[in-house]
Amino acid sequence: MALTEFELIARYFAAQSLAFKRSCVALGQGDDGALLQVPDSRQLVLSVDTLNASIHFPEKADAFLLGQRCLLVNLSDLAAMGAEPVAFTLALSLPEVDTDWLEKFSRGLAAVAGQFNCPLIGGDTTRGPLSITIQAHGLVETGQAILRSGARPGDDIYVTGTLGDAAVALWQLQGDSRLQSSPLSEADLACLQRAFYQPDVRVELGRRLAGIASAGLDISDGLASDLRHILKASAGAAPSNGTDGEHRTELGAVLNADAIPLSDVFTRLVPAEDQLLLALTGGDDYELCICASPQHKRALLGLANQLEVSLTLVGQIVQSPGLKIRLKDGQSVELTEHGYQHFS
Amino acid sequence: MALTEFELIARYFAAQSLAFKRSCVALGQGDDGALLQVPDSRQLVLSVDTLNASIHFPEKADAFLLGQRCLLVNLSDLAAMGAEPVAFTLALSLPEVDTDWLEKFSRGLAAVAGQFNCPLIGGDTTRGPLSITIQAHGLVETGQAILRSGARPGDDIYVTGTLGDAAVALWQLQGDSRLQSSPLSEADLACLQRAFYQPDVRVELGRRLAGIASAGLDISDGLASDLRHILKASAGAAPSNGTDGEHRTELGAVLNADAIPLSDVFTRLVPAEDQLLLALTGGDDYELCICASPQHKRALLGLANQLEVSLTLVGQIVQSPGLKIRLKDGQSVELTEHGYQHFS
Repeated sequence: MALTEFELIARYFAAQSLAFKRSCVALGQGDDGALLQVPDSRQLVLSVDTLNASIHFPEKADAFLLGQRCLLVNLSDLAAMGAEPVAFTLALSLPEVDTDWLEKFSRGLAAVAGQFNCPLIGGDTTRGPLSITIQAHGLVETGQAILRSGARPGDDIYVTGTLGDAAVALWQLQGDSRLQSSPLSEADLACLQRAFYQPDVRVELGRRLAGIASAGLDISDGLASDLRHILKASAGAAPSNGTDGEHRTELGAVLNADAIPLSDVFTRLVPAEDQLLLALTGGDDYELCICASPQHKRALLGLANQLEVSLTLVGQIVQSPGLKIRLKDGQSVELTEHGYQHFS
Repeated sequence: MALTEFELIARYFAAQSLAFKRSCVALGQGDDGALLQVPDSRQLVLSVDTLNASIHFPEKADAFLLGQRCLLVNLSDLAAMGAEPVAFTLALSLPEVDTDWLEKFSRGLAAVAGQFNCPLIGGDTTRGPLSITIQAHGLVETGQAILRSGARPGDDIYVTGTLGDAAVALWQLQGDSRLQSSPLSEADLACLQRAFYQPDVRVELGRRLAGIASAGLDISDGLASDLRHILKASAGAAPSNGTDGEHRTELGAVLNADAIPLSDVFTRLVPAEDQLLLALTGGDDYELCICASPQHKRALLGLANQLEVSLTLVGQIVQSPGLKIRLKDGQSVELTEHGYQHFS
């Protein structure tokens, strides 16, 4: 490496645009560890994500966009817990020192760090295949974090934004033949790129869901898969059939196919017969899935409206296990964990 | 992958041996984030380290030993800050699911996690070249963390344990021809392996250094290089020569070559002419380097004695910049940042 590790950190990661001061950060970069001061009535939320080249992003991805995406996907986890972002750490493995890449990547990080007042407080820079691990730290009022385990039968299920756009972006990146109208217009390309690299993470909405949402998470593996985490985590403890111990019964959900929010670019580029499945199972949305008692419907929609976040009621939590989709023709199909052949 | 990510986590990383409960951990694995409760009078210390295959450890390294090393090197950073370990996160990239490797690796982690009451509270498991990033979290009394910036001229410099053993272990792993008496005895091999994979991290000593140590860090890049971080961070603000602003003058240090603690295996296996340089510049020691005013000498040595930690006075912090070594013959040489030709 032409630059030493310390020179590299000083030049790209200890700059004021990334290593800025803020309350709760008692000590940032430069020692054996960073120091956070957590106010009395708060808990610290920690969330970590790794993005590997050619697994999670193309090796030649634009470094500025990549820097944004890396931090945004972590902030999305904080949003899903209802936390205010405070600071992040970065563990970066680089095959070589590419100053152009580093300059762009650190600018991408700084753009998001500045937007959310979330400075870089520490990390590790090492040689190795390109890999980016970020841990984001946020604060919630003690006991007010939005967990996956609070959903109850009868709760409404909402999602923010539209689903499936990042999956279409992946189709485009991978040259998937199902993509309609190719080559894409500049505007469509920009739209897909934004969906993949610059998801609208719902930090402000998340922070204001305390006392309203019964459960929530961010949609990273597709709504169908992620909703299942809520159904499992919110399983109720029911008396077992006469034996000792408890049997935790998983909850179920019914989603209305018609209600799944789809973007204009999505409906134009994805064949009609693929749309529902892609929207429910395509990953990387980083929208929130929120469960809430029907009594909070008005408050929740009002809040979303006030924050100018699109929020759509897509279904309900039910007592009977399984994930059912109510199709347009009134028919219901079950979406199982291991196959979606019902849809083909 | 034969196992899904969730099955893999459930089997190897959510087991009771790793995901155990302890105070301050309000929520562990399984949600979008973990929750830590930091007591009122404490600050949270965070430290992150990445180990990449074939850069930081041999691709074929024993997974049980590797699991121990990964967590120990992070706990060493907490020790250097004077913190009590609380919990850690793990970001693991795996080229494939090797259940034998995972079983051993997770057992290695669990051995250390259990010893230090430091459970695994979250993480990310992804596909990619073998890479292990751990972030450790600890607690210190507010304002009591041991920083790099507190050293003052006249302070004594101490190191724990012996230096250079891990560097010899690397010689052995890499088949370095300088290694004397090859093949090694079983006992010597075991000693080197322990130095590399199971360093004695000084957590208990670190926690008890508040009010005694003026500065400290753990030795990961070699004492010479790491001590320089203290000299830079502890630079005093002196009046500049008539211009506005301040000029921060770096401190210096004098080390006594005779005093550098070397192990028996080190002195037998390393040629006499290489010993000093290897002990001062070989990495991966994970011993503590501690600075303290001479008035604390008795308390410090008494504490080390009580904890059965070997602690050696190796030199002093001085006003005049640079790192000087006082050789056995009374001569002094300067160890510069970019070359050690004085010694060859």
